[in-house]
Amino acid sequence: MKTRVTQMLGIEHPIVQGGMQWVGRAQLAAAVSNAGGLGILTALTQASPEDLCKEISRCRTMTDKPFAVNLTILPTIKPVPYGEYVDAIVESGVRIVETAGRNPEPWLPAFKKAGITVIHKCTSIRHALKAEAIGCDMVSVDGFECAGHPGEDDVTNLILLPLAARRLKIPFLASGGFADGRGLAAALAMGADGINMGTRFMVTEEAPIHHSVKQAMVEASELDTTLIFRSLRNTSRVFSNSVAKQVVAIEAQAGETQFDDIAPLVKGVRGRELFETGDLEHGVWSAGMVIGLIDDIPSCQTLLTRMVAEAQTIISERLQGLLADS
Amino acid sequence: MKTRVTQMLGIEHPIVQGGMQWVGRAQLAAAVSNAGGLGILTALTQASPEDLCKEISRCRTMTDKPFAVNLTILPTIKPVPYGEYVDAIVESGVRIVETAGRNPEPWLPAFKKAGITVIHKCTSIRHALKAEAIGCDMVSVDGFECAGHPGEDDVTNLILLPLAARRLKIPFLASGGFADGRGLAAALAMGADGINMGTRFMVTEEAPIHHSVKQAMVEASELDTTLIFRSLRNTSRVFSNSVAKQVVAIEAQAGETQFDDIAPLVKGVRGRELFETGDLEHGVWSAGMVIGLIDDIPSCQTLLTRMVAEAQTIISERLQGLLADS
Repeated sequence: MKTRVTQMLGIEHPIVQGGMQWVGRAQLAAAVSNAGGLGILTALTQASPEDLCKEISRCRTMTDKPFAVNLTILPTIKPVPYGEYVDAIVESGVRIVETAGRNPEPWLPAFKKAGITVIHKCTSIRHALKAEAIGCDMVSVDGFECAGHPGEDDVTNLILLPLAARRLKIPFLASGGFADGRGLAAALAMGADGINMGTRFMVTEEAPIHHSVKQAMVEASELDTTLIFRSLRNTSRVFSNSVAKQVVAIEAQAGETQFDDIAPLVKGVRGRELFETGDLEHGVWSAGMVIGLIDDIPSCQTLLTRMVAEAQTIISERLQGLLADS
Repeated sequence: MKTRVTQMLGIEHPIVQGGMQWVGRAQLAAAVSNAGGLGILTALTQASPEDLCKEISRCRTMTDKPFAVNLTILPTIKPVPYGEYVDAIVESGVRIVETAGRNPEPWLPAFKKAGITVIHKCTSIRHALKAEAIGCDMVSVDGFECAGHPGEDDVTNLILLPLAARRLKIPFLASGGFADGRGLAAALAMGADGINMGTRFMVTEEAPIHHSVKQAMVEASELDTTLIFRSLRNTSRVFSNSVAKQVVAIEAQAGETQFDDIAPLVKGVRGRELFETGDLEHGVWSAGMVIGLIDDIPSCQTLLTRMVAEAQTIISERLQGLLADS
């Protein structure tokens, strides 16, 4: 398949890996890129800008295909030296960056000067239009379905994507709710130039997280995610384990909850230790509604080959067939 | 287009009008059917089974195409003689029924004996599988996006539809989130055999509601719906007017709210007077997230012709083109 996204990013399939804290490391990003998609390293998974440079170098030893770096700007307890991470990205020679969380305008001049293609992840049409206006090359439109931060609007991708197609001039990726060839074909039908998948890539052989986490996601249904931190206006969609349920209960009682009431439940650094140890009740981790569509733990190569073949068959056989009969 | 839905229902386009209280009257149902879709009369919009018989007769004078009757079984303050409505539907010779709200099993024998095709509207995969198991001919899968009653699961159609395609044997309609040709093409790509639209048909020339209501929906964005009655576990997606906002505020404060706390706000019979007078703050009315995709008030004929043409172009030009280039 050839779309504006495959052409701009220099990739074979219109499938981009989502930026995922603690998951977006070289082994996953390289596997996605080697399979013909776009792999993404997550900058803040690395403890320092120097470590990020090392991870970028490591990724280069694992693939000669394009890969990107995600830079997510979110409220944090400890200040993050974003400028230094930006410098590290530029100096490392990476050609594609995904920004997320907040308006990327402060960092755009540095990226554009270096000729870097910037994809900004948005959870609303107004933010997508803003990203286009300030010079981003592409946006990723994130629906209510998505893992992690869906924003506070609760608008789903069936609405956001046709709206994006009507209003945006730059190419856009459909993000949140995609895990198979049906979804890929649907996203392209709605006007997206490709899809972005996070949760589906967590449940692959190459994702650097404990097998127990992957297995729990295989076994889960579409009902096994929940929204936490809504009372903080920092909503996050996570796997609905016992910790997430406790957070939901506290938020329901307290109305306007303080972070201090919730933080002790979300032990240590969210997700990291859980991903390493496989202790599923140690904190919370982001998971999209598509866990209900995930039934196996394939390699990235198997996954992408299967999805693209399925989408191609849907387009050339099923959909064409519906027209031919009329 | 020809799908299992067009074939089973004997219609030209795979587009079904949703059952809508106070809106699903003969003038709208006939207009949808005359335009090649399936129009639906809403049984409980008529004050008695006798009135429903008269409305069915009236609809027959307005179209010679197939149309259906919706029977919605929901919690009501005043008991409803459902059995008598079922008898009226059967005796009137209607060939297609849409059931919604609760398990239709008690009424199925009467419908099946009369050779009526039964479409059951579901908000979850488990209910869709149950409907298939008890002998419904088709289901309508209603996502979180939908107007009226989305259930309590909050799962969107990007997840529900591919799941339905994997698990159901009977044909299914995609319901909630659809208003244009992009959505129609996407629904077919995900495996649906057609779409069901309510909100989009409210904003047509023939919908028997006040112009002010239609105009408000044209002017609204995707952010202008809200969920009420969640505290009663009878969640409803409505247009976010001042009354709806008051209900949301009461529910947020009270936790487990009693219906008695909310009822005085929702004056009179929900929607009916508002639809007649155009007084937009007199009660609440159901509206789906797709109000963000609705920009005009076309005739049903114009709407369906445009949507089908758009979907055909997407399939035969855009999607085929993406393959041809690869």
